Order: sequence, then C-alpha cells, then structure tokens
Amino acid sequence: MAGSTFGNQFKIMTWGESHGAGVGVVIDGCPSGIPLAESDIQVMLNKRKPGQSKYTTPRKEDDEVEILSGIFEGKTTGTPISMVVRNKTQRSADYSEIARFYRPGHADYTFDEKYGFRDYRGGGRSSGRETIGRVAAGAVAVKILATLGISICTYSKEIGGIAASYDNFDKEQIEKNPFRMPDEKAAAQVEEYAMKQIEQGDSIGGIIECVIDGMMPGIGEPVFDKLDAKLAQAVFSIGAVKGFEIGSGFNAARLTGTENNDAFYMNNGKVEKKTNNAGGILGGMSDGSQIVFRTAIKPTPSISSVQDTVNKDGEDIKVSIKGRHDPMIVPRAVVVVESMAALALVDLIFENMTSRIDNIVKFYKK
Amino acid sequence: MAGSTFGNQFKIMTWGESHGAGVGVVIDGCPSGIPLAESDIQVMLNKRKPGQSKYTTPRKEDDEVEILSGIFEGKTTGTPISMVVRNKTQRSADYSEIARFYRPGHADYTFDEKYGFRDYRGGGRSSGRETIGRVAAGAVAVKILATLGISICTYSKEIGGIAASYDNFDKEQIEKNPFRMPDEKAAAQVEEYAMKQIEQGDSIGGIIECVIDGMMPGIGEPVFDKLDAKLAQAVFSIGAVKGFEIGSGFNAARLTGTENNDAFYMNNGKVEKKTNNAGGILGGMSDGSQIVFRTAIKPTPSISSVQDTVNKDGEDIKVSIKGRHDPMIVPRAVVVVESMAALALVDLIFENMTSRIDNIVKFYKK
Amino acid sequence: MAGSTFGNQFKIMTWGESHGAGVGVVIDGCPSGIPLAESDIQVMLNKRKPGQSKYTTPRKEDDEVEILSGIFEGKTTGTPISMVVRNKTQRSADYSEIARFYRPGHADYTFDEKYGFRDYRGGGRSSGRETIGRVAAGAVAVKILATLGISICTYSKEIGGIAASYDNFDKEQIEKNPFRMPDEKAAAQVEEYAMKQIEQGDSIGGIIECVIDGMMPGIGEPVFDKLDAKLAQAVFSIGAVKGFEIGSGFNAARLTGTENNDAFYMNNGKVEKKTNNAGGILGGMSDGSQIVFRTAIKPTPSISSVQDTVNKDGEDIKVSIKGRHDPMIVPRAVVVVESMAALALVDLIFENMTSRIDNIVKFYKK
Amino acid sequence: MAGSTFGNQFKIMTWGESHGAGVGVVIDGCPSGIPLAESDIQVMLNKRKPGQSKYTTPRKEDDEVEILSGIFEGKTTGTPISMVVRNKTQRSADYSEIARFYRPGHADYTFDEKYGFRDYRGGGRSSGRETIGRVAAGAVAVKILATLGISICTYSKEIGGIAASYDNFDKEQIEKNPFRMPDEKAAAQVEEYAMKQIEQGDSIGGIIECVIDGMMPGIGEPVFDKLDAKLAQAVFSIGAVKGFEIGSGFNAARLTGTENNDAFYMNNGKVEKKTNNAGGILGGMSDGSQIVFRTAIKPTPSISSVQDTVNKDGEDIKVSIKGRHDPMIVPRAVVVVESMAALALVDLIFENMTSRIDNIVKFYKK
Repeated sequence: MAGSTFGNQFKIMTWGESHGAGVGVVIDGCPSGIPLAESDIQVMLNKRKPGQSKYTTPRKEDDEVEILSGIFEGKTTGTPISMVVRNKTQRSADYSEIARFYRPGHADYTFDEKYGFRDYRGGGRSSGRETIGRVAAGAVAVKILATLGISICTYSKEIGGIAASYDNFDKEQIEKNPFRMPDEKAAAQVEEYAMKQIEQGDSIGGIIECVIDGMMPGIGEPVFDKLDAKLAQAVFSIGAVKGFEIGSGFNAARLTGTENNDAFYMNNGKVEKKTNNAGGILGGMSDGSQIVFRTAIKPTPSISSVQDTVNKDGEDIKVSIKGRHDPMIVPRAVVVVESMAALALVDLIFENMTSRIDNIVKFYKK
Repeated sequence: MAGSTFGNQFKIMTWGESHGAGVGVVIDGCPSGIPLAESDIQVMLNKRKPGQSKYTTPRKEDDEVEILSGIFEGKTTGTPISMVVRNKTQRSADYSEIARFYRPGHADYTFDEKYGFRDYRGGGRSSGRETIGRVAAGAVAVKILATLGISICTYSKEIGGIAASYDNFDKEQIEKNPFRMPDEKAAAQVEEYAMKQIEQGDSIGGIIECVIDGMMPGIGEPVFDKLDAKLAQAVFSIGAVKGFEIGSGFNAARLTGTENNDAFYMNNGKVEKKTNNAGGILGGMSDGSQIVFRTAIKPTPSISSVQDTVNKDGEDIKVSIKGRHDPMIVPRAVVVVESMAALALVDLIFENMTSRIDNIVKFYKK
Repeated sequence: MAGSTFGNQFKIMTWGESHGAGVGVVIDGCPSGIPLAESDIQVMLNKRKPGQSKYTTPRKEDDEVEILSGIFEGKTTGTPISMVVRNKTQRSADYSEIARFYRPGHADYTFDEKYGFRDYRGGGRSSGRETIGRVAAGAVAVKILATLGISICTYSKEIGGIAASYDNFDKEQIEKNPFRMPDEKAAAQVEEYAMKQIEQGDSIGGIIECVIDGMMPGIGEPVFDKLDAKLAQAVFSIGAVKGFEIGSGFNAARLTGTENNDAFYMNNGKVEKKTNNAGGILGGMSDGSQIVFRTAIKPTPSISSVQDTVNKDGEDIKVSIKGRHDPMIVPRAVVVVESMAALALVDLIFENMTSRIDNIVKFYKK
Repeated sequence: MAGSTFGNQFKIMTWGESHGAGVGVVIDGCPSGIPLAESDIQVMLNKRKPGQSKYTTPRKEDDEVEILSGIFEGKTTGTPISMVVRNKTQRSADYSEIARFYRPGHADYTFDEKYGFRDYRGGGRSSGRETIGRVAAGAVAVKILATLGISICTYSKEIGGIAASYDNFDKEQIEKNPFRMPDEKAAAQVEEYAMKQIEQGDSIGGIIECVIDGMMPGIGEPVFDKLDAKLAQAVFSIGAVKGFEIGSGFNAARLTGTENNDAFYMNNGKVEKKTNNAGGILGGMSDGSQIVFRTAIKPTPSISSVQDTVNKDGEDIKVSIKGRHDPMIVPRAVVVVESMAALALVDLIFENMTSRIDNIVKFYKK
C-alpha cells in the first residue's frame, strides 16, 4: 500500500478525491530558503484546471491553492509544505447509477476488486483531480530546478495522429493554442479533427514531449534508480499514460549501432555529442545534453457513445457516459507530465550530492 | 545514491563489476517455506549467459551461482538470501587504452562525471554482467509467482525491424532459435539480416514482449505505485532500454475512445474484457486479464566500425571497439526483462495484502 | 531530509507549525473498510490538548480535527486520509525578542544551524503542536489494533521522582487524576510536589509506561526492524524523550542470566513465560505475552526562572521564558507515546503478512 | 519484511546465518574516492571476534573478510561494496536436540511462530554472528566519519553492576583489559565478579557508553528521523539491548528544568553549552557538542545452569544450554554499538546535505 508517496529525498504525499472536501499534497524534504508564494503554485495549477477551452471539459473549477505550512516570511523553512485545494463545485449529481456499473477504460472495476468498494463520485481517487497535488508539488520542484539553471519545456507533440513538425516548431505557440502544440499549423488541423470527434461523442489521445535544458551531467543512479527509469515511473504513474520513450525511443529498436550511437566531440573545451539519440541519458545518468522524452496518452475513456459493460449484479448492460468530460486530456496533461518530470529530477539531483567523498568533505568544511 | 536496491516488501540489492571478484544479489524479504535450490536459479542464469550462439558474444562464462544464506533443509527460511556468481574468465586484457577515452553509447563519460573515476575494465558496474544479480533474484520471484498460479512468457517480438507475426506465434519456438522469437519464419529472416550486420561490424536492436497470465485483479497501488509505473521503472532500469509501452501503447495515442476502450462482459460468471488495449491494467491495478507490455532495446553500442569520440585529455579521436561483444543483446535481455517484471509483480502482490481490513483480520484470526 | 514521514506499509506524513495556518497529517496505506469518524480522532486529541488542568498549560485550544479525504459513507476507502487541525488561538504575541536568542533546552539554535533561519513563533515546527498529527494518525492505528484484539494502556509511571506503585495500580485512576497516574496516592504526592515547582517557576519530568495486551507472536522483523527497535525510534522521536527501555530494561544490565531469563512453560496448551523480563519481545519479535516499555521525559525546558544563554549577536545574556507553558509535559505526552507505539505496531503487523509463503498462497486462493 | 536493510542514503543489507556458508553485507550508497582495504575492515572485526579472552567464548573464529566489489585501485568507486566472511568453524555438532525445544531468552520460539520453522544451528540468523555484517559496514562508516573529523569512543561503562568511574577514566585502558573498560580498577573488580559467575555457569550483563566528538551542528531531521531516534533504533536493533538513553537519560525524569537545562554561552566566538544533559542533541539535531549515549545489554541467555522450558511437542522440560558461550557479551558488543552509531550518523550526515537551497546551489555551481 502507501502508493500515494513519491520520491526519496524530495518526498511528496498526495491525497484527495474528486468529490471529497478537497485535494492536496504535503512535501517532506524541501530545502529551506526558497522564496515561495501561492501565486507560484497557482500559475501551474491554472494550466491544469478545467474549462480552459471548448476542447477540454466545460466544468468551471477555480482550483485555488492554499499553503498551510512550511513557509515563513515568504520563504520555505525546510519543514513540510502542506497545500490544499478545496473542492468547490461538487455538484449534487446523482451518482447512484454510476455506482452500479463499471465504466470501460476506467478504474471502477479494479478499485472494487482491490478495496471491496469505492468512492464512485466523479471517479473518486482515480479522478483527474488527483493530479492537482502532483502539479502543486511540481511547481515547487520546477522552482528548485530554475534556481539550478534547469528549465523544462513540455508540449503536445501529437494529438489524434496529427503531429507538430519540428520545422514549424515555435515555443511561443504552446500557450497560444488550446492544444499546447508548438506548431500553429498542426494546431489548426487538430482543431478541425477534434470538432468532428466531439460531435460524435468520441475522444482523442496524443503524445506529449518533454525537453529539459541545463542539466548538469552525472544525475541519476546506476542500476535501478537510473534517471530514465525514475522518469518512466514518474510519468507512467499518470492515469492515462500507455507508453514512454527516451531519445530515439522505440525507433532505436530498428537502428544499427552505427546509426544510433552518438559520437562525442570537443566543443569549446566541453565534451558534447553530435547527435542525441540517447535523449541526454547514458547508463542511467544525465550526460549534460538535452533530455528528451515522449509519452503516449490514451483517448479519454469517458465517451457519450453507447458502450457494452457489466453491472455489479453481473449483468451485461449498455451505457453512455454522461457528464462534462474532456474530449481530450492531452493539453491539460502537459503540465502534469512536466510536474512529474520535475519531481523525479529534483529527487535525483538531491540524491547525487553524496556521490563523491571529496564533495562531501568540501560541503562540510567551514 | 543507493541506486542498487529495488523493491519495498520483496527487496533486492545487487552488487558487482564485470572484472571484480564476482557479481551477486541479496534478497531481503523473501517469505519462508519456498523450496529453493541453486538449480532453480541456474536455469534462468543460463538463458542470460554469453556464448549461447554465434549471434551473441562468443565469450564463455559459466556463471555458476552459489547460494550463501537463507536456505535451510532445501527451503527458504525468511531471512536474506545471498547469491554470488564468481567472475571466472577475467582476461588479463589490456584496458589501459579504454581507460583513456569515452566509448559512444556507453556510460564511461557519465560515470567519470558522477564519481570522478571509474572501474573501466569491461564496463565495470555498467557491464551487462550487472544483470546477473537481477536474474538470480528474478528466478526466486518467478518461483513465487508460479506458486500463485502466475506465469510469464517473454520473447523477442522484433529484431532489426523484423517482427514476429502473431499468426505464426509458436511458444515452443522461443527456446528453439537463437533469437528467442516465437515465429520460426521471422527468426530465419533475422538470421540472414544479423549475419550481414555482423560482417559489417555493426549491431542490432529490437523489441521484447512480455505476457503475464494468471494475475489476480487489484494488484498495483493507485497513484504513484501503479502496476504499470512499477513495471516501467523495473524494465527501464535495464541498461539498453529506450522505450516501454503497455497494451495498445503508443498506438493508443492515435485511437479514439470508442476504439481504445475495452468493453466489459460477463463470461461464465466472471467479469472479462472483450479486447485488451489496456494491457491488463486499469487505473494502475491489474484487471484480471493478460498483462502485455513491450520494451525497445537499442543496438549494442560496442561496434567495431570506426567512431568519433574524445579522450580524457579533451582531444577528438577515432576509435574502434574491439573485443567479443554481442552484435545484438535482445535474445539475452529477454530473461532480464522477465526477471524485472517478476520482481515488480511480487513486490506489488505483497504490498496488496494490506488493502482491506477484513482480509487482515481474517489473516490473523486463528 | 524528509524527516516528517514514518512507517513503511502504514505510512504517515505530518506537517504544520505552532503559529502557521494549522497542523495535520496524511496517512498513506490505511486499509479500506474501517469505520472512521472525526469523533474517533477527537477523543484522542482531547487527551493531548492544552488546558486540561492547572498542571498543564492554561492555553485554551480546541484542536478540532477535520478529515479531508479517504472516507466514504463512514468507512476508510484505502486511499490517503488527510486530517487537519486549524490553529485558532494564534496570539498576536510579540515574538521579536524570542527571535533574537536561543532558549536553553530548546531547538532554536539547532534549527538555525541546520536551516539558516527558523519560524520562531511558538517554537515553529519543534512546538509540541507538532504531535497533533501523530495523535490523529495514532487514533486510526489504535482503532486498527482494536479490530485485531490488541489494546494499549499508557500512563505516567513516575513524575518528579514520585513513582506509581504496582501494588496500588488502578487502571480506572488514569483518567481520573490530572497526572494520568494509575495510583491515587502517588498522584496526590505528585500534586503537592508539582505545586511547589510551579510556584518556583520550575518544571518537572517523569516516566511514561506503556503496556500492550493481545499481541499475536511473531511481529517484528529480525535484525534492523526489530519490534523493540522500531518502538524505540517511534518513541524517541517525541520531543522531550531522553530514554527508552523494554522489559527489565536498564536493570537487566545488573542481573545474571539465571535471574533475567524468562522460563517457558505450557499453560492450557499454550506456550507462555513464567516471568516477563523480556518485555514481550524475543529476538526482536513479539512472543505473545504483554509488551511493556518505559520512556523518560525530561522536564519542560520553558521555565520562568532566569537562565544564561546567548543571542544571535553572539552575546551572553540572561533570559526568563515567559508565556503559558506546561510545568510538566508528562500527562499530555502519555497519549503521544501511545500513538507512536500504535503506529509502529500497525506497520510491523502489516509487514509480517508476507513472512510465510503458505500464508500468502492461502490469502490469494479463492 | 525486508528487515535486514538499514539506512536511506548510506544503505546496508546484511545476510547470513551462524552455520551457513558465511555472513556478509552489501553497502549501497557509499561515496566514491574513499581509500579502503580489507585491513580497514579487519581491525574492527577483530574487536568483535570470539576467543579474545577467557571472559568471552573460547570458540576460535578468524572471521577474515573479503571485499568482493566496489573497490578499484584501492578506492571506493561509488558502486555497492559487497563483503563476506566465510563460516569456517562449523562444528559438526549435533543440533537435533536444540531443534526440539525453545531456549529461554532466545529467539527460537518467536522464529518458529513467525516463519513456521527455523535454522536452529547455532541460533541461525539470530546468532551473534549476524553482527559481523554490521561491523564490516560500520568500519566503512567510521572511516567516512574520520574523514569529516568525527571520532567515536565506545567502551563498557558498567559490567555486572560494577561501573567505571569518570574519575579514573583512561581511554588507553579500553583496549588493555578484556572488558573494554576505561578504568583499570573497575576492570579488576569485574574480573573477580566474572570468574565467580563463570564458575556457577551463569552470565552477566552491562552498560555500554558511546561518546562522539567532532559532530557538526544541525545533523538529524526534525520529527521522526531525529538523530537520537535513529541512534535509538540503530542501537536497539542489536540483539541483547534492553535500554537506550541519551545525555542525562532516565535521570532527566527526576530533575527539574532548572537542573536539566544546559545554559548556552559564548566561548571564543562559538556558541557552547555549560553542561551537556542534552547529550549533544537538541530537538533531534546535533548541537555541536559531544554526543553521549548509553545502552543496557542483558546477560547472555545461554547459560549452563538448569532452566525450565518447553519443547515442540508442548511438554514442560528442563534444559541446560551446552556449548562454548560468552559468559558476557558486553566487551564484544562494544564495537557493534560503535558500528551501529556510525551507520546512523553517516546516513543522517548525508541526508542533511539538502537542508538549504543556497548550499545546494553552491554545490552544483562550477
């Protein structure tokens, strides 16, 4: 059990259900001295919140964060940071029907099998609202990374099979279109496709890409806590994820060593790589170049088209999922992926500080 | 640090370098009462050992395991199981040259950056020999799974772009061809392609698929320790892995909800799914159907063709990696993937035992 | 870092400062199906709250708990339980003086050394209010233990050198006198002594004893996670603790083997011990008899008598700690000790479930 | 389960039984660059080994350690260090009798209850030989501490009720008498008392004191991972320990605040304390002064006098434990206590490195 805890040195515990009193997170292990205000958190939560466009759920939720501990005179104190977002728009919906059957593609059945029953209101703990705690903690992690000169750029690489082209890549575009695509043209095509699927009551998946700049080399632990392995777990723990790849990824399986190896060369006195099929990680440790990974997001399972399923009495039934669901989760998931990446990075950057005895001695020498 | 430890309830710690005294593993948290002999371990280690065919390294290593603790009268006692494989064929090779430069695609550079220096003999800790401890522990995990009625079938799904076809799928074939492909025809094609690459001093990647039968539903913890997230970390911690996907995987990103959702239905009083795009996991918990995942393995970075790189004096140089290296690691990696999957499964099966209070009460009631 | 997390299977993370927005705890790993209401928590918090008598601080704090997640239809769901107690009586006291010097016996100096600065209001994170989260989580643990037939009885064994006598032991007395002593006579003596110390602006320490009935044998893990070792850490993590002993404790150092060994004998078909110098634990595992431990609590460091200390400018100064402080913390600490014991027990009871393969197989067999 | 693992950043896993192939330890998380040879380990193991005097077991065991991994060219590489001590003197003793009954004061009964059976030869995993792995790892920890200017002095403070006097304290004496007492006179008295007990086939307990010099302030995490709490767990995990106290310890319970508080004062520009009732720890963090703790060791339970017990058939029987047992374990336990203290200290010194963001930024800035 104890599955809602992530990280070792920078540890978070998230809590909360869709229709309970609220959702939140506690961070245990945040260093002291970081300037932190609720507005730092809010800016990232706003990228996750529903109602941002007609391509996401029309539900209106403000998701205002309150910091309850760990800050004094505007700075982190080194003690746990507790953050809460109250659930405001708990509709008095009638969930008695949904309580009786298992929605395809959802965790209803598995929750019942594991725990004997479930909080079925709005998906309970398996609701997308669970990610609020991740993003709130992720905002702190992003801030720590920035302090160390590390920045993360995350966007929709592909939605409904329509891919952003690297030729048209425009970072500014990401926050300009509702799909968070770095390619205006591709975004326009997605718009058209999405409208069609929405009309049919269907939903769409996509691929999110994450690029990390400024990483020092040597981060990640050889063997089980490799940087790529921790990123994989971090990202795969997000509800709708079905795939994760780094650098050349699945394509590497079809290349030869000659094609896939990245040659080293000297660039202004620095060791660099001519290509980056490795995605910035060699032997599980950052190599100082850009870290690049992609993750596949499945189409939202909540669709209004009629589906076959079973109810708790063991009867075959037909259902149509009602409610204001996201026809695509990808644009809102972008900030969740970024948050999880940031959390994994900070944890391993902290872990790395004890890798050499001479650095430890220097650290403690006055 | 502490990156060589995996698992929470069924915890392993691996150790050892390619050219040190040996490699090994300690398992902490193995239940008592499991019949276990060195032969149980050896059978899985033999699938990993070099020299199995001309398509893997011609090095001959026996890799004989010795169990040093945790067994009494043929059964596990519940105390730590320590296993060691002595390194026998440490060639008196001259590694002084390799000590001076960074092999492309290897961890030489990142090890130096992290630790200040490295054991450069045969790759040291980042050698493929590191996986011996994983497989030795994996063999115990596989045995535990078998006791619970769970079996794992792992094989090469694709090598060098040549895929095994589900139409020709023949489980018996897996151990009959040197590529561990479940399709005789595809294996023959791979053979031809591989010979060509070997002649050119190049190397090949591939995709390994893993199918798990007999899983009870409800295994995996919601949120961060989802079954798929732990499998992702477990498998991604293997040296050459570049991608991981479950069920419909990256393809899910291109499907609609209607296409990707798996309808539930009643089958002989049991809840089942008509399709398995979920890959046997819903909301991070096993749904009782087959678990299916795939992982992308990059081509072996050790190739004899000439490559650009740099040396420790900061000079651009040209190198050709000599030695008896695997032109493809995929066939030998199959058992490593299976081992890591088994370790993740056992850990989560153990974790799940405290999910319901009524089960705990029943457990302790005499 | 990450020091505010306790437990492995039944994991808690506490947060909050004396004068922040509130204090609280999240429990990750609580089984589903436990009937739980705020009143279950409140009853234990009330034993900890200030203002219970003139022998504890006269501050009035209601410490009302709110459960924010993890409960549905009156029962735990298996997901994290978040609990918060808002800080209501934050006095607008002037802490500017206390910010400038280090109180003897307090953590002011060490907090500054570790973190560079501190939330000095009311002790910040090192305030006794930090224990609210422990007690709230402890209440859940106590409930789980009760379900398994385990009960804990904790009381003041000794205050200011005046010990409760086993001859006069009366369990009912514990909640009848302000000192939580199970001996009416001793309580009367303590009263007299305490009044004298209070008048002199001094403070008093004591010894808390904890007796656990109903433990099944075999709980605790050999080697590092011994039941007594985990109890020792759990209890020693409470602010004012200076000593911990189990069974014959420090006295065992003066006994011979003949005197200290507990003889086994058969009692109605059950293996029992004639004496209990072991305190219910052998080799780190419960032996099925009563678990008995004692812990030493130092006198409250906040005293109004004049003391020598230094200020942040590095000057020797004289101070007198003002404010409404507890002249003795022992009576209020009783429930904190009980909570920590309960948390350690539940964690190890959960861990123990995977000790035998036959029990695991039986658990999963339908 | 998984009880044989200790530490978070500097993590060890011990393994091995008294009469198996050997005993050992793996360290995961040791920094690179520490000069380390088998002789560094051996010197500490020799203090633990049997046969050092007539007051410990006359068994002769060489306990020669072999380092199997993690060292290259005389220095630690940052990868796991595996160490093994082969069991050489496995007597072909007949253990069939001991297999049938439960020795008073031993873990025979609890092992059977937990695991269903046990390796009864020489105590199996609960044998004192289990501590070899602790001491081997402890030797590495002691070396790390020395590099940081921290030294530990551990000795027998009291044996059989005869205490070393601080007036006669002579550090040189510790390794000069068989009792490891820092007081020649007390040692002579112990000798006399011990001979008497040995003649009667009885055994003796004692108190070990540990003094740590050179600790930087701020080590230890507030709340659950307090420095004293981790020391308590570390030391209490040693087989025969029944009590642990820090600074004024149990005596603090009888003091008033005025007596027990340590006044701060300026000494040559440094904050120091006039007394050290705190034992060097305030609020769970080191305060820069000497750390002082004591631990109570029970008399060896293996005695040749006749005792009552039960056998596995549920019959009351009389037994006399034969074999070459230690009449007192205290002198040999001294180095085990020191090892566990060192392991806890190193772990928390490493954890502390992420307590302040400015230190982290400085660490990573080139």
